[in-house]
Amino acid sequence: MTDRIVISIDAMGGDNAPDIIVEGVDAQARLDPTLRFLLFGDEVRINALLARLPAAKDASEVRHTPDVVGSGEKPGVALRSGRNSSMRLAINAVGDGEAHGIVSAGNTGALMAMAKFVLKTLPGIDRPAIATYFPTIRNTCVMLDLGANVDCNGANLVQFAVMGEVYARNVLGRENPSVGLLNVGSEDLKGNQAVRDAAQILQSTDLPIKFYGFVEGDDIGKGTVDVVVTDGFTGNVSLKTTEGMARLFGFYLREALTSTWRAKIGAWLAKPALMKFKDKVDPRRYNGAMFVGLNGICVKSHGSTDGLGFQNAIAVAVSLIRNNFNEGIKEDCAKLFALERARQESAVEAVATAT
Amino acid sequence: MTDRIVISIDAMGGDNAPDIIVEGVDAQARLDPTLRFLLFGDEVRINALLARLPAAKDASEVRHTPDVVGSGEKPGVALRSGRNSSMRLAINAVGDGEAHGIVSAGNTGALMAMAKFVLKTLPGIDRPAIATYFPTIRNTCVMLDLGANVDCNGANLVQFAVMGEVYARNVLGRENPSVGLLNVGSEDLKGNQAVRDAAQILQSTDLPIKFYGFVEGDDIGKGTVDVVVTDGFTGNVSLKTTEGMARLFGFYLREALTSTWRAKIGAWLAKPALMKFKDKVDPRRYNGAMFVGLNGICVKSHGSTDGLGFQNAIAVAVSLIRNNFNEGIKEDCAKLFALERARQESAVEAVATAT
Repeated sequence: MTDRIVISIDAMGGDNAPDIIVEGVDAQARLDPTLRFLLFGDEVRINALLARLPAAKDASEVRHTPDVVGSGEKPGVALRSGRNSSMRLAINAVGDGEAHGIVSAGNTGALMAMAKFVLKTLPGIDRPAIATYFPTIRNTCVMLDLGANVDCNGANLVQFAVMGEVYARNVLGRENPSVGLLNVGSEDLKGNQAVRDAAQILQSTDLPIKFYGFVEGDDIGKGTVDVVVTDGFTGNVSLKTTEGMARLFGFYLREALTSTWRAKIGAWLAKPALMKFKDKVDPRRYNGAMFVGLNGICVKSHGSTDGLGFQNAIAVAVSLIRNNFNEGIKEDCAKLFALERARQESAVEAVATAT
Repeated sequence: MTDRIVISIDAMGGDNAPDIIVEGVDAQARLDPTLRFLLFGDEVRINALLARLPAAKDASEVRHTPDVVGSGEKPGVALRSGRNSSMRLAINAVGDGEAHGIVSAGNTGALMAMAKFVLKTLPGIDRPAIATYFPTIRNTCVMLDLGANVDCNGANLVQFAVMGEVYARNVLGRENPSVGLLNVGSEDLKGNQAVRDAAQILQSTDLPIKFYGFVEGDDIGKGTVDVVVTDGFTGNVSLKTTEGMARLFGFYLREALTSTWRAKIGAWLAKPALMKFKDKVDPRRYNGAMFVGLNGICVKSHGSTDGLGFQNAIAVAVSLIRNNFNEGIKEDCAKLFALERARQESAVEAVATAT
């Protein structure tokens, strides 16, 4: 591998591939000319796009494959029959040490299954999770899982808590991040079995985690905790509900600001400020969810994003690579799980001595 | 019962009771002087508040009780030991035919348990659900369950679909409302067991329900369907996430519009329009969730709302009563379940004839 950061790109994943993928690569290449890209996919289509985008063309190497993982394909099927797909070959490049990280806007389930198979999970992690930043009134929080694990038990949620804690410390730079479990109420007796079990483990564990307790949906935006832990079903619905509501708010605001001449003049005067606001709540700004718990950097872009959104997903991968995030998470997870193992072993020894 | 609509009020439920409760009653009494209220709770505190609010005083009758259901009390405990609580007596007034509906900002679980015990569920309904309107880009949708049932199976979700359909027809006035199941993706293979089972039932049933299929979180704001069906855990988190995000958006917008002098002048000019926008996204405007599936009108207010929010919850109850909502839902549910029973019986008969 060269000294330059190399990003492996699934150029065929997502609703508007390869067009917006190559556009995103071009935008990021212009921003950071030291980056290199490996683009996996249909070389005729990709080269046609690169011909119009010199920055992307200079930074990229195209690796041809005609195979694509369909958006509705089952993860197991994709894993078996997608060995030569753009997604799989892009992941392989990370596994082979050719690239430092991979970005795809394709089928989430297939990407997770393939990434898990090729890159393997970190020691102590059963199930990798999908994590992303959420803006809050205080600053930002990290939330996981966002859809990798639809059904979770308490132990799964505890592993997410560990990974989220490490993420908040290594990527967000929080000294002693607080961790909350997303629930339907803050009282101990609330919620389903999984969150109650997880709370019990987190309350009694020796893991040096600052467990806040249960948080509710509105605590995400408030910034009550640095890490919000939830199962993949709830996390995914919650994240996407926010996206829909953001669009609704924008719609109402535009409606209001074009309703009268006075409002129109006011909006024209406030335009630079309103553009800053628009940028701050733009979902594309938050595009790029990381798969945490894998032995390699893998970032998932929203399937229906545009070039700007895909560029953001690439930027997330670059920042994780630059901050040696995976080394950090590996060390921290190893420490935390060793601590937990030692505790369990000493508990077993204590029982053995007593009998 | 008189011809005037009588609303029974749990004056002691919620974070700021009885103050904001009586304020909400006063605001609604001024808006609609034909209403009558039965206020259950601490008569000394309530009368002190009424002394300053003549409209509420004229419209209300105070029924003293010192007992209050705590916000952290388990539903079962509240049911057994809260027989003289303000919440229970307020519900009893509906059960006894003294009032047309009850509104409370207290403990949701206790309210549901008591309402179910006193008012009973409608024929064919195992579990009542909590429903509310959601604003969408198209108009409004109804979403349920929002927290009554943390764990749900496919059959539960189908009952919610039936109730939501009836709600959309009777209250929102939709001719042939479409029903969507909230999921992490729109493909058939996505999601947990409960949503997949529910989808299968809704696809194959004879119930005259326009089943759209799976919807994702962002479809709520888009207005893709008239009825969004989900389990109480996901629905509650999703609803509250939206509340938190609405506050975050307001915060960002204020920040932007006060960032420069030009923005401030623009905001001043656009103020009437911005106030209209603010009103449209005000969570208090959407306060007042209905318990559907019960043999009586029961509306739950957010526990931390203010007088304006509580007034809205009362208005929801009044509108349900005026539109004979419960009669409508009773008839429609009976029809739908009779149809389903007939289908099952004819299937059994067919089997019996064949053997």
